Amino acid sequence: MFVDCFELSKLALKFQTQNKGPGLLWNEITALSREPGVIDLGQGYPDFGASSIAKQHAKRAISSDEKTLTGAVIDPRANQYAPIPGSTDLLEAVERYYKETTTSDRGDSDAILIDCERDKALVTTSATEALYVIFRALLDRGDEVMTCSPFFPWYLAHATVTESTLIDVPLVAEDGFVLTEEMLDLAWEKSEKKVKIFVHCSPHNPTGHVSSEAELKAIANFCRRNNVVALADEVYERTTFFTNKPHLRLRDYLPERTVTIGTASKLFNLSGWRIGWIYGNRKLIDSCNTFHSYASFSSPTPLQAGVAEALNSICDEREREKKKRAVWPDENAQILQENATILAEALTSSGCKVYPCEGGFFLVASVKNIKSIQGDAVKYCKKLAREGALVSAVPLTPFYNPDNGDSNPTDLVRFAICKRRETILEAARRIKEFPL
Amino acid sequence: MFVDCFELSKLALKFQTQNKGPGLLWNEITALSREPGVIDLGQGYPDFGASSIAKQHAKRAISSDEKTLTGAVIDPRANQYAPIPGSTDLLEAVERYYKETTTSDRGDSDAILIDCERDKALVTTSATEALYVIFRALLDRGDEVMTCSPFFPWYLAHATVTESTLIDVPLVAEDGFVLTEEMLDLAWEKSEKKVKIFVHCSPHNPTGHVSSEAELKAIANFCRRNNVVALADEVYERTTFFTNKPHLRLRDYLPERTVTIGTASKLFNLSGWRIGWIYGNRKLIDSCNTFHSYASFSSPTPLQAGVAEALNSICDEREREKKKRAVWPDENAQILQENATILAEALTSSGCKVYPCEGGFFLVASVKNIKSIQGDAVKYCKKLAREGALVSAVPLTPFYNPDNGDSNPTDLVRFAICKRRETILEAARRIKEFPL
Repeated sequence: MFVDCFELSKLALKFQTQNKGPGLLWNEITALSREPGVIDLGQGYPDFGASSIAKQHAKRAISSDEKTLTGAVIDPRANQYAPIPGSTDLLEAVERYYKETTTSDRGDSDAILIDCERDKALVTTSATEALYVIFRALLDRGDEVMTCSPFFPWYLAHATVTESTLIDVPLVAEDGFVLTEEMLDLAWEKSEKKVKIFVHCSPHNPTGHVSSEAELKAIANFCRRNNVVALADEVYERTTFFTNKPHLRLRDYLPERTVTIGTASKLFNLSGWRIGWIYGNRKLIDSCNTFHSYASFSSPTPLQAGVAEALNSICDEREREKKKRAVWPDENAQILQENATILAEALTSSGCKVYPCEGGFFLVASVKNIKSIQGDAVKYCKKLAREGALVSAVPLTPFYNPDNGDSNPTDLVRFAICKRRETILEAARRIKEFPL
Repeated sequence: MFVDCFELSKLALKFQTQNKGPGLLWNEITALSREPGVIDLGQGYPDFGASSIAKQHAKRAISSDEKTLTGAVIDPRANQYAPIPGSTDLLEAVERYYKETTTSDRGDSDAILIDCERDKALVTTSATEALYVIFRALLDRGDEVMTCSPFFPWYLAHATVTESTLIDVPLVAEDGFVLTEEMLDLAWEKSEKKVKIFVHCSPHNPTGHVSSEAELKAIANFCRRNNVVALADEVYERTTFFTNKPHLRLRDYLPERTVTIGTASKLFNLSGWRIGWIYGNRKLIDSCNTFHSYASFSSPTPLQAGVAEALNSICDEREREKKKRAVWPDENAQILQENATILAEALTSSGCKVYPCEGGFFLVASVKNIKSIQGDAVKYCKKLAREGALVSAVPLTPFYNPDNGDSNPTDLVRFAICKRRETILEAARRIKEFPL
């Protein structure tokens, strides 16, 4: 009787049904991560390297509404509402960051640089919220949003919340997950021509692919020809592994229609702080701000103070070194690259096929040739976490559009490489010692 | 050309239009608060009393992913994603809080207490997000949500986002903002009988009214008769001013269909932390959690640690004193009550009519008899902040349904009383010295 009082909305029921598919699977697999003795390479949180600058300044901010020895209070509002669009310090730091660090910073690109005066920043309570508010600001019911598959599952969730349709452009593992303009055009032809947003992720979650200049130019052409807005999900932008595959920002190739998101979760290893941001067209930002104010209202004030300092320190260091030093990749990148190498070697020796990992927090492998689990990623992940190695990873099933049914690959597994070296070494040792 | 690439959604445009009404006014008035020399009694953030327990523990949590002297790390995930529904510590603290502190705690109520085993907690990134996810979980397009007016403007915003209609039950200042079952029935008759949620706020923002047992029973009857869910916005529950008007929880009168929200913003004077919660039916909570995961994903991890300690300290103190001490009102309440008295006296002497303030963070006054501004609240607020007193306050215009047009009162003004004593004294002094 109690339950029946709460009749859920159609949208809520729709998500319940979806949860019976990939959602339930995701929960089942991540539950295995929490079993005793299991090494969690499932969820992509870093277990090291949280920015000490950010932490120091956040702690200082939390205390700064207290009376000092002189009886003065530095900031009585230190733990109170920040301005809705973000604390002034953090907004300035985000704008400075995007203006001072560009693709051309590496000196190895012929990107056209346009300092887009129509752009500004907005602080959001996580990059997840950033995605949500951009979708809300641009999509009407029945509109379409396009992205490459496999994709971060939240793109599909936000499409569902806004009652829009996700059109996917399937990337092929054997082709190195490379995107071409022809693939974009093919997906467009299959769409209802109501695509308003193309979501681009580089370095890519989950594949580890870093987009080349040719790929960015293809996206720019496609968006211009079809009047599509580009949402650049570049949250892993300082984590690239090879000098011949540097991070290139989409906004440097498509300044007039790109909106970019970033987050302290990935830039400063602070996934628990929920501080993200959007940088883009002022009119769009104003509308995003409205939906931000109706989602979380404002973002955590003392944590914004910490992130502002960390962002500024990137630009400060670059200035001190007279702009000779590229701002990316950051110091994390080398650790993660070595992690990827260590893990790839173990996975290969245990019978997996590992795909090249050029950046980001993840490594993807195929388990097609592992006979004991019939080459099936779901079975592999369950067996890997429960028997032998006791390592958790996630099958890519939830990273594909369920509407595609049987045409989605079933042999791909994602491993998080954003972990301490000893964690990765132990996982690699176990994977080699207990092959499936 | 740049702007035209970003064609906003219909919903975004709808909010732009609304902003030309009350939103724009709100922005104009709050901008006056930031002018030099102006005392801000507009926005309801406390400028004192941020919980030191919460602050201490949050700072400790931020540091606990660092190596101690022994080389051990207390919690490598201290600054990483919390579990989506909330940190275990905070979830347990919220459930303990609602189970151990009930209406009957005061010993002056004959409320039927039902420990509803079907209820559980969910941590949300602010009470604003809590409202949003409950609306999303329950409302379909075209549904109705009912609340008393004047109301917290975000109720209308969330109704708009979910494409539902807000039905208001007008409370009358001259009647002490009292609600009766007849008033609820009258509003129901005028509705399309698609009301799924009744949002109840007590202590009430903005009027300061605290609901009596008779009012709660009227709401319970109404909700049961019409199969309506009650959303109890009781974020100010520890701030009541009179022993004969204690806080009574709606869930104690309507356990089977009440979902309650609370927040560290108001309970611990931490409006900048964005930690709120929902307590209610498990099935509803699970659905709210889905939308929470698609809004901010999870809430700030180290701040949750701080709030958990602060919540537990309420129950711990009560246990130490062998449950003899009522948990409410809290120590803040007396300060705010005295603030209300000081401000009311000044406002009355300057020609305003002040309505009884029984709890919460606000005081409401009528400026009907002030001739220089023709009894108009908007003119009063602009003149008060710009000339003479230099005190900011907000007209109640945005707290009414704009669809009602001319029938909304135009003479009511809200003053925040959640400020340091010296702030209130100075505001009172100026209001008396510079009458409008």
